[in-house]
Amino acid sequence: MDVSVNTGIIIAGGAGFIGSHLVRHFFASGRHVLVLDNLCRGREAHIKDMLGDGRLTFANINIEDTDRLTRIMGEFHTSHPVDVLWHMAANSDIPAGIADPDIDLRDTFMTTHSLLTAMRRIGLVRIAFASSSAVYGDHGPDTPLREDTGPLLPISSYGAMKLASEASVSAATEHFLERSWVFRFPNVVGVPATHGVILDFIRRLKTDPRKLDVLGDGTQRKAYLHVDELVAAMLFVVERSTARRNCFNIGPLDDGVTVRSIAEDVVASVAPDAAIAYGQEPRGWVGDVPRFSYDVGSLAALGFTPRLGSRDAVRRAIDEIARQEGA
Amino acid sequence: MDVSVNTGIIIAGGAGFIGSHLVRHFFASGRHVLVLDNLCRGREAHIKDMLGDGRLTFANINIEDTDRLTRIMGEFHTSHPVDVLWHMAANSDIPAGIADPDIDLRDTFMTTHSLLTAMRRIGLVRIAFASSSAVYGDHGPDTPLREDTGPLLPISSYGAMKLASEASVSAATEHFLERSWVFRFPNVVGVPATHGVILDFIRRLKTDPRKLDVLGDGTQRKAYLHVDELVAAMLFVVERSTARRNCFNIGPLDDGVTVRSIAEDVVASVAPDAAIAYGQEPRGWVGDVPRFSYDVGSLAALGFTPRLGSRDAVRRAIDEIARQEGA
Repeated sequence: MDVSVNTGIIIAGGAGFIGSHLVRHFFASGRHVLVLDNLCRGREAHIKDMLGDGRLTFANINIEDTDRLTRIMGEFHTSHPVDVLWHMAANSDIPAGIADPDIDLRDTFMTTHSLLTAMRRIGLVRIAFASSSAVYGDHGPDTPLREDTGPLLPISSYGAMKLASEASVSAATEHFLERSWVFRFPNVVGVPATHGVILDFIRRLKTDPRKLDVLGDGTQRKAYLHVDELVAAMLFVVERSTARRNCFNIGPLDDGVTVRSIAEDVVASVAPDAAIAYGQEPRGWVGDVPRFSYDVGSLAALGFTPRLGSRDAVRRAIDEIARQEGA
Repeated sequence: MDVSVNTGIIIAGGAGFIGSHLVRHFFASGRHVLVLDNLCRGREAHIKDMLGDGRLTFANINIEDTDRLTRIMGEFHTSHPVDVLWHMAANSDIPAGIADPDIDLRDTFMTTHSLLTAMRRIGLVRIAFASSSAVYGDHGPDTPLREDTGPLLPISSYGAMKLASEASVSAATEHFLERSWVFRFPNVVGVPATHGVILDFIRRLKTDPRKLDVLGDGTQRKAYLHVDELVAAMLFVVERSTARRNCFNIGPLDDGVTVRSIAEDVVASVAPDAAIAYGQEPRGWVGDVPRFSYDVGSLAALGFTPRLGSRDAVRRAIDEIARQEGA
């Protein structure tokens, strides 16, 4: 891959939680970077320190505006030939998408459709796409979820629109893309935190340091990866996995930590005197997969193993998010 | 299921090839039927004989117009409580969708999204959805495609948007649907033919009875089912398979016939003196899966076995379509 300083990278959702880490990586390596973000969940503050530099172009754009998108991407591609477009733009509020499926239709799927349309028009041929473990649906804790596991029966609009996006990327890879990478993310933690259970707990404890109400009975168990390791894993895969279509689960080696464990760690860290009150249901909300077993054997076989387990990733993120929130 | 004569059925795409057969079935059984169709590929002529009867309501509507759709479905549901909505509306021209993915986005996926939105608004809780073997992508002739086969890597926009639709139906089944049936169709033949290889061959031979040019080298092999058996299979499954989510491959027991065999049968039937000229490529167009092995074991286990093999289904359809075309 030609990585001369003149080469460009496009990052959709580049002002968001994960996207901003990618922006930082490529910017630090001397690349020209175009950030596309509607600042709906992303924040200009996340990339502020790079904005003054000519190598970072920021476009505040609704990605679904395909014509404007094509024009902006085309102009950037002309001056800085783009080797990979990273698509990290999505609705990250799963319960919101369940209440109104139009949110995930627009922010999680139509962004993909629009980016692929623009790529086709201007001749970009490589995409790296942030998909999700939510595409699998609820197979129970005893079925290891591998990349070839089926049937795919998402139980949230978010998971459905991530699967729809994977499907569009697959079809585009047949038609005009030279290569595609699909990453199925676990729960990702770290800063800048914009959503998620740790941020939620910390904010509630800031409001009332005596009590923490937890959705669900606390037995939900999920795999957590720190954002630094997620980004390292994606960069590793894009470098090493060179099939036409590449699909990888990304996650830690363990089967996760419970919500109860996260609640206890947050309380110990930011409000040691708080009482924790749990709900009755085994899942936090409709569309939440209460417990699943994530197989990351393909990633390990390629040569990447995260150093932090779920609990250490969560603990590190608790410290970082507590600092971010001044808690 | 309450099947009193006052009970309603909604059939999206009811003026189309397969939809019109369903309309005919339910109408004959005394049900009130609402047909939703934009007449883009469907034809009023396909249901003309039933239009004068008060039990058939026809709405010429772009299904993506969610507000109008909700109003029309809601009014019908109020007078004739609907037990199942049958969603048979889609773009059926796969190459057209490859040239312009917006076609399948709109006609194959947004129809699904819009129907689910309207169902949620008016409280309909059962959907039967026409999906496709195209959701699997190209696994080669040696991998039997079962309902739980993965990964799903569609190679056409059509297949991608059918998979996107399956994903939305799955998420909706978690949120508000009581039950869903997903049928993965093989190639379906019969009348009223609106598209497909047999119709194409017959029309070309009508224009020039001396010569038939075939896309691809003729070795593409596909499973064909006659529309009468497809409809019988779907009705059988909806009656007998009562899980919350139901997904079935539908197809014949054999692994199909080649395009060469179809070309020879069409020529023998309508223009015995024509010379057949084949192309060089093993597939007819980009996005065409040249050969696949379709596992219909789940359907057989439920108790349904088609009587016609692929070749007999094709031959019967050739006779029917030749009559339709006056060839």
